[in-house]
Amino acid sequence: MNREEALALVKPHLTDHRYTHTVGVTDTAIKLAKRYGANSKQAELAGIFHDYAKFRNKEEMRTLVKGKLTNNILILEYSSELLHAPCGAYYVENEIGIKDEEILNAIRYHTTGRVGMTLLEKVIFLADYIEPGRDFKGVDEVRELATIDLDKAIIQMLVNTISFLMKRQQQVFPTTIETYNDFIKKQKKKEK
Amino acid sequence: MNREEALALVKPHLTDHRYTHTVGVTDTAIKLAKRYGANSKQAELAGIFHDYAKFRNKEEMRTLVKGKLTNNILILEYSSELLHAPCGAYYVENEIGIKDEEILNAIRYHTTGRVGMTLLEKVIFLADYIEPGRDFKGVDEVRELATIDLDKAIIQMLVNTISFLMKRQQQVFPTTIETYNDFIKKQKKKEK
Repeated sequence: MNREEALALVKPHLTDHRYTHTVGVTDTAIKLAKRYGANSKQAELAGIFHDYAKFRNKEEMRTLVKGKLTNNILILEYSSELLHAPCGAYYVENEIGIKDEEILNAIRYHTTGRVGMTLLEKVIFLADYIEPGRDFKGVDEVRELATIDLDKAIIQMLVNTISFLMKRQQQVFPTTIETYNDFIKKQKKKEK
Repeated sequence: MNREEALALVKPHLTDHRYTHTVGVTDTAIKLAKRYGANSKQAELAGIFHDYAKFRNKEEMRTLVKGKLTNNILILEYSSELLHAPCGAYYVENEIGIKDEEILNAIRYHTTGRVGMTLLEKVIFLADYIEPGRDFKGVDEVRELATIDLDKAIIQMLVNTISFLMKRQQQVFPTTIETYNDFIKKQKKKEK
């Protein structure tokens, strides 16, 4: 599947704004992939499809989680914004026919992260945060770090995200803190 | 056991600085107990003994966790500062002879918090943060909140603590985030 085919498949599922974001994530992911040695074709497809389920019916996604994605059952207790990542991976596999687990995982974990993220997962996770259309407090610092050190950029992104949630008195999904702790632990080992 | 007897028992285990802190926590805990309807005698004893194991040999405490306190095994992967709370509860029970589980739990969870904290646990958790000797960024805001709403004060304390750890690129113990999430969830229910 080439870029144009993939974009044509995702477009009907997105608003104009979200489509522009998707193109931004895709191009940023390709750049990050080239900078850090990930497969840029995988990064492109994962970027294009990462928000495939963003506007899917929430009730349908909750039913999917309760039925076929019970590993993710905990997300039902948290923000409904978390649904589109694991459900997206499922729909992309079953409706688009992408079977590459690395791409599917990059979609699956692009909102919460996870312990032991792969290079491709990191690329999508970060690209989603720093693509050119993003404009929130602290994003420029993360963009700067992204040119130097992928892991340090993600740590700063996680700190910003967790701080943002706490400032708004919102719950923090436990996996996001576990992801942060995992990056910190590995960073400390690297520095030893 | 009266106040003087209890203080005499804890004093040999503490530095002068930590003893002053302990008296501060105790008096603050008694005030909070009176303000929010906890038992002030329990608050007094929990305050006096909350840091009983603060300067205990770390290796001894790690061995205790691996042997008799295996419920707490996860703390071994995090800061050694977490050891003194669960180990303290154990020593206070077995060396001082306090059998009151409510007091022991207040000691046990005074560093990390836990999901479903009791009133007494909250009183000690917060008193440890706002006692008059404490002087860190944001403490006055929490002191102010503590006069109005115990739970809101603890939420702000948790936000400050988690932010502080992240700013220093330190790991956040998962239970602390679970505690924060639990308070937020209950706060939202109250506001409904």
